[in-house]
Amino acid sequence: MSWRDNLIKIEPYVAGEQPNKTDFIKLNANENPYPPSPRAIAAIRGYNAENLKKYPSANAVPLVNAIAKREGLQPENVFAGNGTDDVLSLCFRAFFNSDKPIIFPDITYSFNTVWCDILNIPYKTIPVDKNFSIDPADYARPNGGVVIANPNAPTSIGRGLDFIRAILDSNRDSVVIVDEAYVDFGGVTAVPLLKEYDNLVITRTFSKSRSMAGMRLGWAMGGKEVISAIYATKDSMNSYPVDSIAQAAGVASIEDEEYFQATLKRVIATRGRLTAELRSMGFLLPDSQTNFVFASHPRYSAKDIFEFLKTRDIYVRWFNKPRIDNYLRITVGTDGETDMLVSALKEVMNLWN
Amino acid sequence: MSWRDNLIKIEPYVAGEQPNKTDFIKLNANENPYPPSPRAIAAIRGYNAENLKKYPSANAVPLVNAIAKREGLQPENVFAGNGTDDVLSLCFRAFFNSDKPIIFPDITYSFNTVWCDILNIPYKTIPVDKNFSIDPADYARPNGGVVIANPNAPTSIGRGLDFIRAILDSNRDSVVIVDEAYVDFGGVTAVPLLKEYDNLVITRTFSKSRSMAGMRLGWAMGGKEVISAIYATKDSMNSYPVDSIAQAAGVASIEDEEYFQATLKRVIATRGRLTAELRSMGFLLPDSQTNFVFASHPRYSAKDIFEFLKTRDIYVRWFNKPRIDNYLRITVGTDGETDMLVSALKEVMNLWN
Repeated sequence: MSWRDNLIKIEPYVAGEQPNKTDFIKLNANENPYPPSPRAIAAIRGYNAENLKKYPSANAVPLVNAIAKREGLQPENVFAGNGTDDVLSLCFRAFFNSDKPIIFPDITYSFNTVWCDILNIPYKTIPVDKNFSIDPADYARPNGGVVIANPNAPTSIGRGLDFIRAILDSNRDSVVIVDEAYVDFGGVTAVPLLKEYDNLVITRTFSKSRSMAGMRLGWAMGGKEVISAIYATKDSMNSYPVDSIAQAAGVASIEDEEYFQATLKRVIATRGRLTAELRSMGFLLPDSQTNFVFASHPRYSAKDIFEFLKTRDIYVRWFNKPRIDNYLRITVGTDGETDMLVSALKEVMNLWN
Repeated sequence: MSWRDNLIKIEPYVAGEQPNKTDFIKLNANENPYPPSPRAIAAIRGYNAENLKKYPSANAVPLVNAIAKREGLQPENVFAGNGTDDVLSLCFRAFFNSDKPIIFPDITYSFNTVWCDILNIPYKTIPVDKNFSIDPADYARPNGGVVIANPNAPTSIGRGLDFIRAILDSNRDSVVIVDEAYVDFGGVTAVPLLKEYDNLVITRTFSKSRSMAGMRLGWAMGGKEVISAIYATKDSMNSYPVDSIAQAAGVASIEDEEYFQATLKRVIATRGRLTAELRSMGFLLPDSQTNFVFASHPRYSAKDIFEFLKTRDIYVRWFNKPRIDNYLRITVGTDGETDMLVSALKEVMNLWN
């Protein structure tokens, strides 16, 4: 036996599209085309970086307070972490300690299967239907926990409170995590249900609607018991608290509701225009409640379009995965980026006609 | 079965000493008493925070390059992550996939047992001797991997290259991680051995010698194969790269060797004075190669001293753990903080005499 035999066996990494140039249109990571709140930027510039010599405030109290205030909750209902992935990994460890599998859709955020493997959590994926719709009835089965992204990714489809309520009603004995990474772009939040269901946990991120993907900042909301379990898990893992500068920037972002709403409005307006343009070209796509669209074309292969767009320095996302390999996930960029995308698509369709 | 039955079972958290006041002397977290490099501070102030809308540079290339240059390595020998804990957790997952237990000292960084539990890695701790010394011969046994902190914490004892070499020579078939979190304060780095041993991995942090505990920044060094395995593990886990601002600050810190050395010199000088003062009061403590000392007194209980110091607004670290529960881990602060600590200790000894 050599030490090499004990190295992890993983698939060779297929590199994400990060071209080695700066002059291209990046619509493949669901980033926000607009900068963070000017108040967040000012908080970073004004941060007294001498303080970095000390570890951060342990539980990000000012940030938790700001989030609780905005969401109409108590601080005991909020946990702030180093990005949604950090928060979700703590949640998985805190909540999913059953022998029964946790359940989630087959088409959803890829985090779930990865972390179930890491933490040895049994899981079962449940197929969405041919329209990528999730049927709550499928989640009325014995399980060790439920994870639903709403709106879902990469499908872009958001559902209403009745949908979440249906899942919660048939899962009184499981923790149900609702990942609301994209909810601000027109989705319906489950926050009002927190009063009724103490097994509901909602996660959010600063990476999308708050334009702070370059930091690591996310949070969870839930009843006091579930949130306490996240804190206990974090503490038991020796985890570091949220980066001090990110804490300061996060508070400023949360407190700037006006800029937040204005940015969302711009993205949503451009999404409407993009959706209409794509449909006029024959693309099929559901109405999006996110900052991206999920589109396929009956006549052209998604992979071919994806490859063509790269030759025009436009990067969108194509997943080489069963069921969705003829779809493109396209981030809603600026109006200018959208114009260039649309004209590149018109170009290729002319070419291929 | 209720969802509560599947919550993680963990010991109630014993809160760390984070008094709710600002006017106290904090010598309990091995933080650096001096601020980060002025260049790092300038990099943060000058960071174009509009860029935060995008995800960070995937593999922190400029930071990796700066570290490689400073350490006399190639970029392929360096992995940068969100703090040493992030780097170590990736290493554990990447390297420790054997059925045999990984081995490490019973008295060392508490991270090891926590993450072995999380990742289901079997482990065995090996007692250090009564002087807290690690005997390399104890590590010549079948194992799935070895983790050594050098200098070790909380003992403060650093060992030379012969010690690391002895462990490596009897562990040709295991990955050996040497955690050098404290090495800059007078320890001996194993970097020169990287040329000879491709199963050696060295980890470092920005939190101690580089005064950046408020961020999350650490790195690993090793042969191309082991470093590639860390990258592959990170990529397979969907992990976010290092925070963009932290990347910029990290590069600036690494490039400011002069400030770095000057800060180390100050800490080491104060450590010498603190050590002498403590010994003159009858404390027993090994020579420290870290930014803290590990001291016990033959006549007074560590816990009593710890409690007394709190009444004087001085916070040191006392571990309620077997073998070390009569020791105090005291961070080397500024000269002024050290004076106040010493006079408080003199006060209590007068009181108790």
